[in-house]
Amino acid sequence: MKKKVLQNLEKLRIGVITAGGDCGGLNAAQYAAIMTMLNLGYEPIVIPGGNIGLYNLIDYSVDEILPATVAFAESIDITRAGSEIGNTRIKIKQIDDPESWERVLAGIKKHRIDGLIVIGGDGTGRESRRYIKHGIPCVHVPKTMDLDLQSLSVGADSAINKLARIISDAKTTGESHNRVLIIEVFGANTGHIALCCGVGSNADAILIPEVEYDLGVVYRDLKRTLFDRFNRSSTNTGTYVIVVAEGLKETEQRPGNGGATGAGASIATRLKTMMKEDKEIVELMKAARLYVPGVNEAPEIRDVVPLYIARSGETSALDVNFGLEVGAGAVYALSQGLSGVTILGFNKGTLNYMKTKNAIERRYVDDDKVKMFENMGFCFGRPVELFEPTLHEVKKPPERLY
Amino acid sequence: MKKKVLQNLEKLRIGVITAGGDCGGLNAAQYAAIMTMLNLGYEPIVIPGGNIGLYNLIDYSVDEILPATVAFAESIDITRAGSEIGNTRIKIKQIDDPESWERVLAGIKKHRIDGLIVIGGDGTGRESRRYIKHGIPCVHVPKTMDLDLQSLSVGADSAINKLARIISDAKTTGESHNRVLIIEVFGANTGHIALCCGVGSNADAILIPEVEYDLGVVYRDLKRTLFDRFNRSSTNTGTYVIVVAEGLKETEQRPGNGGATGAGASIATRLKTMMKEDKEIVELMKAARLYVPGVNEAPEIRDVVPLYIARSGETSALDVNFGLEVGAGAVYALSQGLSGVTILGFNKGTLNYMKTKNAIERRYVDDDKVKMFENMGFCFGRPVELFEPTLHEVKKPPERLY
Amino acid sequence: MKKKVLQNLEKLRIGVITAGGDCGGLNAAQYAAIMTMLNLGYEPIVIPGGNIGLYNLIDYSVDEILPATVAFAESIDITRAGSEIGNTRIKIKQIDDPESWERVLAGIKKHRIDGLIVIGGDGTGRESRRYIKHGIPCVHVPKTMDLDLQSLSVGADSAINKLARIISDAKTTGESHNRVLIIEVFGANTGHIALCCGVGSNADAILIPEVEYDLGVVYRDLKRTLFDRFNRSSTNTGTYVIVVAEGLKETEQRPGNGGATGAGASIATRLKTMMKEDKEIVELMKAARLYVPGVNEAPEIRDVVPLYIARSGETSALDVNFGLEVGAGAVYALSQGLSGVTILGFNKGTLNYMKTKNAIERRYVDDDKVKMFENMGFCFGRPVELFEPTLHEVKKPPERLY
Amino acid sequence: MKKKVLQNLEKLRIGVITAGGDCGGLNAAQYAAIMTMLNLGYEPIVIPGGNIGLYNLIDYSVDEILPATVAFAESIDITRAGSEIGNTRIKIKQIDDPESWERVLAGIKKHRIDGLIVIGGDGTGRESRRYIKHGIPCVHVPKTMDLDLQSLSVGADSAINKLARIISDAKTTGESHNRVLIIEVFGANTGHIALCCGVGSNADAILIPEVEYDLGVVYRDLKRTLFDRFNRSSTNTGTYVIVVAEGLKETEQRPGNGGATGAGASIATRLKTMMKEDKEIVELMKAARLYVPGVNEAPEIRDVVPLYIARSGETSALDVNFGLEVGAGAVYALSQGLSGVTILGFNKGTLNYMKTKNAIERRYVDDDKVKMFENMGFCFGRPVELFEPTLHEVKKPPERLY
Repeated sequence: MKKKVLQNLEKLRIGVITAGGDCGGLNAAQYAAIMTMLNLGYEPIVIPGGNIGLYNLIDYSVDEILPATVAFAESIDITRAGSEIGNTRIKIKQIDDPESWERVLAGIKKHRIDGLIVIGGDGTGRESRRYIKHGIPCVHVPKTMDLDLQSLSVGADSAINKLARIISDAKTTGESHNRVLIIEVFGANTGHIALCCGVGSNADAILIPEVEYDLGVVYRDLKRTLFDRFNRSSTNTGTYVIVVAEGLKETEQRPGNGGATGAGASIATRLKTMMKEDKEIVELMKAARLYVPGVNEAPEIRDVVPLYIARSGETSALDVNFGLEVGAGAVYALSQGLSGVTILGFNKGTLNYMKTKNAIERRYVDDDKVKMFENMGFCFGRPVELFEPTLHEVKKPPERLY
Repeated sequence: MKKKVLQNLEKLRIGVITAGGDCGGLNAAQYAAIMTMLNLGYEPIVIPGGNIGLYNLIDYSVDEILPATVAFAESIDITRAGSEIGNTRIKIKQIDDPESWERVLAGIKKHRIDGLIVIGGDGTGRESRRYIKHGIPCVHVPKTMDLDLQSLSVGADSAINKLARIISDAKTTGESHNRVLIIEVFGANTGHIALCCGVGSNADAILIPEVEYDLGVVYRDLKRTLFDRFNRSSTNTGTYVIVVAEGLKETEQRPGNGGATGAGASIATRLKTMMKEDKEIVELMKAARLYVPGVNEAPEIRDVVPLYIARSGETSALDVNFGLEVGAGAVYALSQGLSGVTILGFNKGTLNYMKTKNAIERRYVDDDKVKMFENMGFCFGRPVELFEPTLHEVKKPPERLY
Repeated sequence: MKKKVLQNLEKLRIGVITAGGDCGGLNAAQYAAIMTMLNLGYEPIVIPGGNIGLYNLIDYSVDEILPATVAFAESIDITRAGSEIGNTRIKIKQIDDPESWERVLAGIKKHRIDGLIVIGGDGTGRESRRYIKHGIPCVHVPKTMDLDLQSLSVGADSAINKLARIISDAKTTGESHNRVLIIEVFGANTGHIALCCGVGSNADAILIPEVEYDLGVVYRDLKRTLFDRFNRSSTNTGTYVIVVAEGLKETEQRPGNGGATGAGASIATRLKTMMKEDKEIVELMKAARLYVPGVNEAPEIRDVVPLYIARSGETSALDVNFGLEVGAGAVYALSQGLSGVTILGFNKGTLNYMKTKNAIERRYVDDDKVKMFENMGFCFGRPVELFEPTLHEVKKPPERLY
Repeated sequence: MKKKVLQNLEKLRIGVITAGGDCGGLNAAQYAAIMTMLNLGYEPIVIPGGNIGLYNLIDYSVDEILPATVAFAESIDITRAGSEIGNTRIKIKQIDDPESWERVLAGIKKHRIDGLIVIGGDGTGRESRRYIKHGIPCVHVPKTMDLDLQSLSVGADSAINKLARIISDAKTTGESHNRVLIIEVFGANTGHIALCCGVGSNADAILIPEVEYDLGVVYRDLKRTLFDRFNRSSTNTGTYVIVVAEGLKETEQRPGNGGATGAGASIATRLKTMMKEDKEIVELMKAARLYVPGVNEAPEIRDVVPLYIARSGETSALDVNFGLEVGAGAVYALSQGLSGVTILGFNKGTLNYMKTKNAIERRYVDDDKVKMFENMGFCFGRPVELFEPTLHEVKKPPERLY
């Protein structure tokens, strides 16, 4: 795909699809892509349901696939999560049809689609490279609630806000009943979300795949902190909150829980055992005047998995702002002949992008960041080492999103 | 306990305890009880942790149990859920101590407590009758998220608001992925909460213990409604939402889920089977252009259990208003010599109350109410019968809360 | 309008209009009316923009005014405030057209409308009686954010929740800067909203039209409370919050403020003067270590008017539940031949209603209720009298909404 | 202040103050500073009320100013806005006391404070340079709701989220009544907030100080857009939303409105006049079937000023995360001997900072950013020029906050 070719087209027709898990910012990105195309005189083609629609495009008559209008764009609520044009996790290669790519390409040809704007995560980034391999120019708009792309992505800020609120709110339950609360959050391979919503809600401990943890360290921090709180409180109340990334390697699985891996439940089980075997607990409960024989001999431990609740509903303003920016950016990039790239955003008049294959390389939580938070009292399940940052003076104004 | 006795006391000392599950309105009720007592010149005694504190009261020195002050009352955030004075589900009889009642009574005597204000549900209502049996005057402030007392209770309105928001928000996920969503909510024996948050979020089907349901009826409504929505939508999207009361009798149990009974998971499993066995689904999926061989041959079905998320965090204004009213009411009732009664609220200068044993009789969802909602399109899993209400003219202004 | 006439109609055609200020619950009421009619086989006619649509109905062709469908009803988001079918405060008699009623009646006749369901407040209730006078059967669904009808109405609970949240949140500003905050809320003639959101947010003083207040009483409570809080706080912080009903008679008006009467601003001005003239303030500021010569010699006083923010956005679950109930009730009432009545709601299989002329009589805040809250520490600007409620045992289960 | 000197101190005593307007993130920054100091073995000294406390520090006995404890830090709710240690806009030079600096320095000396962490905006940045001039080492943590520092700052993200929600919610009111809504938001000199919350809520027009606007352009966009929406809607409803930065130069002032400049009210007045003088409006109203003689001859125009509501209550997760990061960063910077610098945040093990005098230079909204949004349909009151971004490939992973 050459830049000139696309610019020579009288009416560039660009398809818009979303893929992967739903989250905040998808609607903003598709709205911006559609509206920017309309303003530039292009024809935005909405492909319903991501790869579902791409696979079935050939079955639609030409009259059924008309360019999106302002009225259609205005029907999209950019302040809400989810993808109003429909979404799927399905990859073309997973389809039980040996001619699935032929079918996709025939649909693309029939509806004269010149290129695709694909809004999705790392899997979708890889899928977009397959589109390109099959001859469909493609620009990638980054989305992942896991925050594990090299680029910033839509979706995470909304989820972090929701989760931080859920965790912070859950403390009213924990404190009423003197319970330990364990909250399992998104993050199949990385702990970005657990870290951000954990510190964002002032949780006590945060367990993430990047940090090798010793549950004994957590248990000791829990015991000390919890009983300190009981003893300090005029009503003997207190809680201790542990945020667990679902990607934590734990053996117990909770079946049928729609994505929950059971990491939180497993940590809960193990902590219950530790507490049961701890001879000091009864004395501590007695000293805190919380001991009741047979029925309240140790603090209770409960786990919660917010699941879909974390990804639905309102979208944060940051995700809307960033979604609009990268959605528009994709139009400029594709119309100028780029393909195989991931949009990073604008810095003044410059549109920054990365090669998609580089952008989707998994990003892990940085250990220095963990150390910084450990030195602020958050427990990550390991002994705290002194954090000694290097100081660096920045001389020119930093690039920034907001 | 005679009215005169209490009024003769120079400084009436009344203990305040909360019991049962935590929820919205508990803080308002205890705040109002404490502040009203302070204004009336009584001594409010906060008993930490409900029965935990009652059992351990004897261990506190007299100097440690001082009347609550305005400063203490102001430290209670009445707009937040939970009980800031601590809470427990423990009943005295469950305690592994044959002399637990003696211990309780000794504590009551040591700290010269003249009576108790007990904020809790039906179990707590029964417990309050046991206090009375043991000689402790007691007034009951109604609390139950299940709404199944004869009296209105604090807690439910906050939970219904939270759940209605969660369900309404979850639709962004359902619509993005064309999924059926099943949400299991509180209600161990009754369907009040499921009904109120179900209609409050415009869910499609509501399954409650009071209504014998045929899942086939739900399935047919689901199929018709969902594909109507797909076909009506310009992007082929849609969802169908089922709210399930945890008290629904279902066989599968999901272990270790902190109170979730698995009713929602069971309904999900059964619906998946029905859908799998339904020969028409593939044709409907094809007609809706959603069929993708091997990977999208039927709509997905997912279940969520909000659990603690529904009871924590913000308290609704109604629960605060009502909590303040009944918390204050309990002080007037107890100080005028009442015991064994449940506070209903004020109607102008009249404080309404019921005998606790009558107030805590379980209240079920009224079948006529269900019929009314069925005739509005909500599915309860049975054929819809015509609702024919009797008309009744009310001539004098109705009693009301707000 | 006779009952039989309506029931003989094969297809009863009922128009639905909303009128007056927008608020929560309107969408629920209209949704329920439409869906109930569709289930009963009637033809729901949506009249856009209330009296605007009624006046212009004659200009629509018969094909343009078709019965609402399920698809239309589903497009209404019952969890959101406002009226999606359009709303106006205009009364027919205000229209600058001597033949406005003729025009309305011609439209009604042209589109064969058999009766109206009118969702609105006291003004709308009066307007509905004019429809009837002109021969249009009419049932009234109560709506008023002011809560000043005899019947419960949709809208207020949503507004009270929003306002209580705004007031509660505003304390973070007040406490940071040691400010007195004055918040002016809805309530043109009555103080229900100010009372409910004031106690719902634990405000300190509440000024309402029903209670003759002495600002000196407020000032003294403010001074004592505020400096107590400063002195009690380890960081010398504190706030004092006054909620003012817009209907409070104050002389200063703040022009162009979309409904704000300036009552809050006037109270602010008067309190500033009192504080300026109070010789003790400087000493108190010094004692609290807050005195800074020339720039911080007295606590600041600020006022806020939330206005439209209080009536827009989310609808509370109670307003949705109640809106659905009374919206459906109106259909049953009208179809059974009632007219000139206001729907109160269902009690099991009984539909309760009042004559509209009785239902819209203004309801004032009860003085005993004020006394009850005064005895809990809320300041209403007058000396506190002892509240001595009469006790009343309720023997049968109370009627209730939830 | 030399690096070595500070590191030699056995117990570094660092004062923490906040200054300027209250907002989200202040509590997180102070919490992180205190907790990091406690972990590093330093003594965190909380100075109550910013410069108020600094001025009065000399009056506290040595025993009254003790290092903050973990218990104190835990009493700070980092998820809430405002500054729990107290805040003020007062600058030392404004104090009516010729010896104010002497007094400050005496207090600093008396309590052996080695340096200050100052959390505030540009004015506070300038004030921090005055502290340094008087010999008090000082590190600046950036805070400004206006977003107009060169560095990212705490507070804005929370405010943008609140405002975007308020604006988005207000549409239910606008659409119900077919109104034009004008919302005036923070931004005394720059339009960052107006821009971010305007696009974040999908407002229609955004007026900011950086863009010279022609109200005629806005009016024409309004007229076209609004009547398009009326005509497209099956219920003739629609709204048009204009977000106005308070810093917009407008002549009319609305007195006594606590910071509101009247820019929104002025725009409202001018648009009303334009609409009144526009001969076409009546025809358009008639065509949209909205015309009612005398009472509805043109769409209504209303303005709202959210004021304090935008800065109070919840803090966004981003502000908490960033606040924790820069609050901790300040401790590392100060303890390593830096002074006169503003913290930018960490990039892995590197702590980035700028000279405060550079960091507080006012940053304006970039015109290319405006162009990008104009090409997406947002109206800024000027003709839209084609946006032609330069494309730039980023080769190494970008620095990022989350």
